[in-house]
Amino acid sequence: MFKAEIKSDTLKGLVNIVSTLIDEVKLTIGPEGISLKAMDPARVAMVEVNIDSGAFESYSADETEIGLDLDKVKGVLKLASSGDIISMEQDENHGKLVFKVGNITRRMHLVDTSRMNDPRFPQLSLSSKINIPIEELQQGIRASESISDHIALTVNNQGFELSCEGDTDSASLMVSKDKLKSMELPEGNDAFKSMFPLDYFANLVKAIPSGTTVCIELDSDYPIKMNFEFADGNGKVSYLLAPRIESD
Amino acid sequence: MFKAEIKSDTLKGLVNIVSTLIDEVKLTIGPEGISLKAMDPARVAMVEVNIDSGAFESYSADETEIGLDLDKVKGVLKLASSGDIISMEQDENHGKLVFKVGNITRRMHLVDTSRMNDPRFPQLSLSSKINIPIEELQQGIRASESISDHIALTVNNQGFELSCEGDTDSASLMVSKDKLKSMELPEGNDAFKSMFPLDYFANLVKAIPSGTTVCIELDSDYPIKMNFEFADGNGKVSYLLAPRIESD
Amino acid sequence: MFKAEIKSDTLKGLVNIVSTLIDEVKLTIGPEGISLKAMDPARVAMVEVNIDSGAFESYSADETEIGLDLDKVKGVLKLASSGDIISMEQDENHGKLVFKVGNITRRMHLVDTSRMNDPRFPQLSLSSKINIPIEELQQGIRASESISDHIALTVNNQGFELSCEGDTDSASLMVSKDKLKSMELPEGNDAFKSMFPLDYFANLVKAIPSGTTVCIELDSDYPIKMNFEFADGNGKVSYLLAPRIESD
Repeated sequence: MFKAEIKSDTLKGLVNIVSTLIDEVKLTIGPEGISLKAMDPARVAMVEVNIDSGAFESYSADETEIGLDLDKVKGVLKLASSGDIISMEQDENHGKLVFKVGNITRRMHLVDTSRMNDPRFPQLSLSSKINIPIEELQQGIRASESISDHIALTVNNQGFELSCEGDTDSASLMVSKDKLKSMELPEGNDAFKSMFPLDYFANLVKAIPSGTTVCIELDSDYPIKMNFEFADGNGKVSYLLAPRIESD
Repeated sequence: MFKAEIKSDTLKGLVNIVSTLIDEVKLTIGPEGISLKAMDPARVAMVEVNIDSGAFESYSADETEIGLDLDKVKGVLKLASSGDIISMEQDENHGKLVFKVGNITRRMHLVDTSRMNDPRFPQLSLSSKINIPIEELQQGIRASESISDHIALTVNNQGFELSCEGDTDSASLMVSKDKLKSMELPEGNDAFKSMFPLDYFANLVKAIPSGTTVCIELDSDYPIKMNFEFADGNGKVSYLLAPRIESD
Repeated sequence: MFKAEIKSDTLKGLVNIVSTLIDEVKLTIGPEGISLKAMDPARVAMVEVNIDSGAFESYSADETEIGLDLDKVKGVLKLASSGDIISMEQDENHGKLVFKVGNITRRMHLVDTSRMNDPRFPQLSLSSKINIPIEELQQGIRASESISDHIALTVNNQGFELSCEGDTDSASLMVSKDKLKSMELPEGNDAFKSMFPLDYFANLVKAIPSGTTVCIELDSDYPIKMNFEFADGNGKVSYLLAPRIESD
């Protein structure tokens, strides 16, 4: 059993966060909330989301799993204006999720979850950690476009740097320590630097709502972890992106 | 002889209404106003428009016929801002219509009307009739997109319903009786339902200006008639759309 | 040596003016300012720009030449908001120009100028001269689209006319003498008329900022000269466009 009401903006945020990596998602539903884990088809990036029932206008659920086609959910979102409430109710007999928006009823076929495995989310202990406004990452990505296919991220004593080296041109964005919301660097270490595929990094950053503070955990030639909250802290997201190892 | 001035917004509304079905139109012009009848090339939908001379800022005409290429008229509309007056004058010697917008003169070649026949508009007596805001129809169409190629319309004692059944998914919009501006249903009948090609129905609805109340006449497995007014009641439009008969 | 700061809007205006004709430009830089001359690859149109150092927020330069890829400069402009200051500094050792926008550093490879020759800008003495708001030219171009591939410009005692003759249709925009900011026509002459390729003329006009007064010099079957200022008079632009000679 699953029955809930949610603000269209909250559902839209969730769909944006997940659909940047996959087309179909398995939601693991319980009395306290919903969780999901997903990996992109090329196995370069992962996302883990936990949404507390407090993110919903109303919420009531037993333990269950549902598989959603995210393009169809986007179609439902187009029927709602900002501020509208969308209701969802599982129809277990017919394998459907029934959405209601205003006077519209949309019965959506659920995706078979039997072949959808939860990816194992690795427990990584990464050396440095910063908190940064998403707008700085967006600006760094804009500066890197059409210069190279990969972007280097560095944390050092000066702050955080996004940089991009092409054959003839280069671009970098330096966020000094005092512009970061916080920064943790282990004593005795001067810098951590990893390189990532620009398109993946850009897509993840684009999916993060503006105004968000992102917690970045970074090491040298290790995956990057980006954590942030949405829905007034009732939703927690972790992105993990594999590094592109430089072959000098 | 035909000479008239018209607000650009009124002319734009007229062109939108007709160009959803055809590219070239024959206008039958007389001292009291203009009328036109047109059928789309696939003969699925028809439109009939009558515009009283009161829709114009100034109007003077004998009995005449002119054939217009609607894409060219759209080009003239792009030269005008909302609120601008467009003047038109027939140049009978050269087979042209001369438009003036501000300090621009646009001499437009007329289309030969000799091969353009007025389609016969059938006189139908349809059982049910409702008046509904165009916004409800627009929302119903949005809900139906990517579910099926056809849409079912129903009038019953509860009100008016647009519904769409796909292989796995479905959507419906129910406009209850009290949300309709009026509803006429013959006694002893419980429901009238016909099905229509979604693309045609959507195109007709898109051509109707927002804020319009549409009078829908509906029967079972019969064409639908949609009547509405524009230009402050000086223009009257009837759309007729053939049903798609279900083969169960 | 070249080092300067410029408002992003001023740099954007300059790039628009030049990039309508060419992809790469050679800037001739001196202590007093910057100049450039360029001809489009088909040798139909030319542009000459002179920018006084007063157009910059700060400026310091020896005699030097730099070659820029205008698409790359457009990329830098996308990193700046209206009102932002962009700094530029030549790195002579590495053949680069270093842009700074906020906390972004963009090192741009310079184009080799050794094969880029300054086109010879012909000294023409054209018979008539008018000053006209750019908006009138824009409206005349909109009226001409999809009628013909060329546009005729005429100066006569009544004023200035843009006209376009197709096989069946025509359009013209007449700007009467009193709507022009000024008009000079030699005594005893009644009209000067030349015809130009519409696409070229339209592209030049589109590159001119709105609100600009353009000085047009016109003769019969001669090139047209369009002069205007930007950056509060610190930048001066001359466009020259070859006529299309009518073969009657």
